[in-house]
Amino acid sequence: MSDTEKHRISEVRVTPVAFRDLPLLNSVGVHEPFALRSVVEVVTDSGLCGLGESYGDLPHLRRLERAGQHLVGTDVFDLNGVWRGVNESLAADSGVGGHGMSGMVTDSSLADRVVSPFEVAALDLQGKAVGRPVSDLLGGAVRDRVAYSAYLFYKWAGHPGQEDDEWGAALDPDGLVRQARRIIDAYGFGAIKLKGGVLPPEEEIEAVRALRAAFPGLPLRLDPNGAWSVASSVKVGQELDGVVEYLEDPTPGIEGMARVAREVSMPLATNMCVVAFKHLPPAVRQDAVQVVLSDHHFWGGLRRSQRLGAICETFGMGLSMHSNSHLGISLAAMTHLASATPNLDYACDTHWPWKDPAEDVVVPGALTFEDGAVAVPTAPGLGVELDRDALARLHEQYLTSGIRERDDTAYMRRFRPEFDPTVPRW
Amino acid sequence: MSDTEKHRISEVRVTPVAFRDLPLLNSVGVHEPFALRSVVEVVTDSGLCGLGESYGDLPHLRRLERAGQHLVGTDVFDLNGVWRGVNESLAADSGVGGHGMSGMVTDSSLADRVVSPFEVAALDLQGKAVGRPVSDLLGGAVRDRVAYSAYLFYKWAGHPGQEDDEWGAALDPDGLVRQARRIIDAYGFGAIKLKGGVLPPEEEIEAVRALRAAFPGLPLRLDPNGAWSVASSVKVGQELDGVVEYLEDPTPGIEGMARVAREVSMPLATNMCVVAFKHLPPAVRQDAVQVVLSDHHFWGGLRRSQRLGAICETFGMGLSMHSNSHLGISLAAMTHLASATPNLDYACDTHWPWKDPAEDVVVPGALTFEDGAVAVPTAPGLGVELDRDALARLHEQYLTSGIRERDDTAYMRRFRPEFDPTVPRW
Repeated sequence: MSDTEKHRISEVRVTPVAFRDLPLLNSVGVHEPFALRSVVEVVTDSGLCGLGESYGDLPHLRRLERAGQHLVGTDVFDLNGVWRGVNESLAADSGVGGHGMSGMVTDSSLADRVVSPFEVAALDLQGKAVGRPVSDLLGGAVRDRVAYSAYLFYKWAGHPGQEDDEWGAALDPDGLVRQARRIIDAYGFGAIKLKGGVLPPEEEIEAVRALRAAFPGLPLRLDPNGAWSVASSVKVGQELDGVVEYLEDPTPGIEGMARVAREVSMPLATNMCVVAFKHLPPAVRQDAVQVVLSDHHFWGGLRRSQRLGAICETFGMGLSMHSNSHLGISLAAMTHLASATPNLDYACDTHWPWKDPAEDVVVPGALTFEDGAVAVPTAPGLGVELDRDALARLHEQYLTSGIRERDDTAYMRRFRPEFDPTVPRW
Repeated sequence: MSDTEKHRISEVRVTPVAFRDLPLLNSVGVHEPFALRSVVEVVTDSGLCGLGESYGDLPHLRRLERAGQHLVGTDVFDLNGVWRGVNESLAADSGVGGHGMSGMVTDSSLADRVVSPFEVAALDLQGKAVGRPVSDLLGGAVRDRVAYSAYLFYKWAGHPGQEDDEWGAALDPDGLVRQARRIIDAYGFGAIKLKGGVLPPEEEIEAVRALRAAFPGLPLRLDPNGAWSVASSVKVGQELDGVVEYLEDPTPGIEGMARVAREVSMPLATNMCVVAFKHLPPAVRQDAVQVVLSDHHFWGGLRRSQRLGAICETFGMGLSMHSNSHLGISLAAMTHLASATPNLDYACDTHWPWKDPAEDVVVPGALTFEDGAVAVPTAPGLGVELDRDALARLHEQYLTSGIRERDDTAYMRRFRPEFDPTVPRW
């Protein structure tokens, strides 16, 4: 029963991959035809392999590779050692680029972004070594299914120059209601999030009202990614009083959010102005946000995301979860984290439905949606297995995609040269 | 290597014990001839036994027994389930009594106090199940030795009616310097803490100055347990400018501490006004304390103490560690916690030297002081083993001691009937 064997990291492999993405609109542009991710494999001298997933931007890939070299020899139970090794690898780093979020969030912590896939892989390895799911290593699942939200986007009918995709256009309230119906029919989601910041606020209010009318029982969220001034945010917030469960990042910055918060009734949520531990003190002191969207990809992994959760609980803030376009390794990690974090009780965001089910790096079957929720894997570690053929295919796709840094703005400007991503816009 | 076996709690044994204590003085009275503790054994259906240690006050013992019954069937990896079970067991609890600190701290969290020994035992069991020291389960040791401080007390020469003890009296600067020399010679401590609040502040200042002169290289702390008014605290703080590394609980309450903090140069530390998570927001908002003394016995165990550490790190507060009279199970737990908490970098407090080495419940040898520090045990779990004969002896001593709740004030009043424990006193 006892296993005193060490599990020291002997090799780290970082593989960039690309998977097809749809023309989803946001305040800084539009999703490119491919989304990038990195798949991190951490191999131990005991013959185990753990998995992590992160951004695929080139500067980030370089950092992951350097960090991986620093981690050789580290025991996978030594998460403090993983943190130290990553920080050492970044000692001379300029910190430029590789934020992974197309310029929308540039103030997350470099060390927290880089450590994340290694921490996840280390927990995957710990779980495999001791025969326990990652949720057990995080304190035990308090829910055996994790609810996700229907993440709606304004979108074009298809990428310019390509055929329309199966989802078609969503550029007005009717289009969004249609999209919501389809996504909810397919996944059973019990909460709705609309990515806004695309059209003038009055049009987005109209869309939210249409969604409210079409889905009267479902909690609704609107997230314009800081596209509005304080005055516009207050106006929208007052108009949507009683309609949305929270309003996400209506305006940029902690100070602006604090000004809005004083004038609106609903909680303000953020994954833009509080994206690192250093932002928590000013946010708390100004009572700027009432809900923080965790994201283990930039909050330093699962244990550090639980730290964030503990801080939210202690300081009376709610906790939800942010998502970028991601693959199955991240979905597994998000699900374990949410399952073992009692106060993470909002439905989590996920881009999952926007990904072609045929394009993933994990063996299908471990993660399935039912009634809008994913059952927490109970197999050791993350409970997902790497599909090496699929990894090779998506890496080949990365090589041929030509995309090396996510840039929603540049892609938008190919079709609308005058597009200006500056926020606040309205 | 893989071990998918569950380890479910099948039995919990709570054994009260008493060990001889010396007449150490503090602001609420004097230590009684015996200190009480509870030893918690958590047995699993897989045949493992995990250890926890806590207060021995009767109301607390009753709660531990009730909580233990609620935990039967819980898997030891399910720390969230342990937390839930303990809270269920307390649903109808009056919350009266059992604080374990002789009226000095009465606002700690009931649930956090009761869960603590079970959480520690669960981690001990996890470690034993997977062959890892508890420090590995807490993120990995960042130091292989944990430094403790020389904890000095004003004291009588012996308990009234008994012969003088080997330490003799310490009721003036000379007596304290003598005590310090002896304790430092024996243990090699590299930092000094003086328990004050016993004599008028000017006499305690004199004592601190004498210690500074006798031990010029060692960091010094003074802790009067809230015995001083704000005005006195400011006066002492200004007189000891540059002399103490921190001033601990000079005055009661967050607001009072905040007023003192604005007028003195050194950090203010506390284990009295911030003793539960609910105290952190007001303390942070008022910048009342600059160092929090963690104590896993009332902060809900080791993982929740790490939460406290994370909050301190995030909000720019230092982290140190508080101690009550304790046995070897607690010393092991404190050492693992401090080893795996990077920002717990002050020397921790311990009452260890005041205990007769012959009186403990753990098999000797696992925990030894060298140069004021304890090497972090590397055996699975806490790395200490229960000595059942010793447990039986100390339980018998509990039965015959007649003490059922720690009450330093009542004991003091036997000899000084006029003694008034009200603070602030000066």
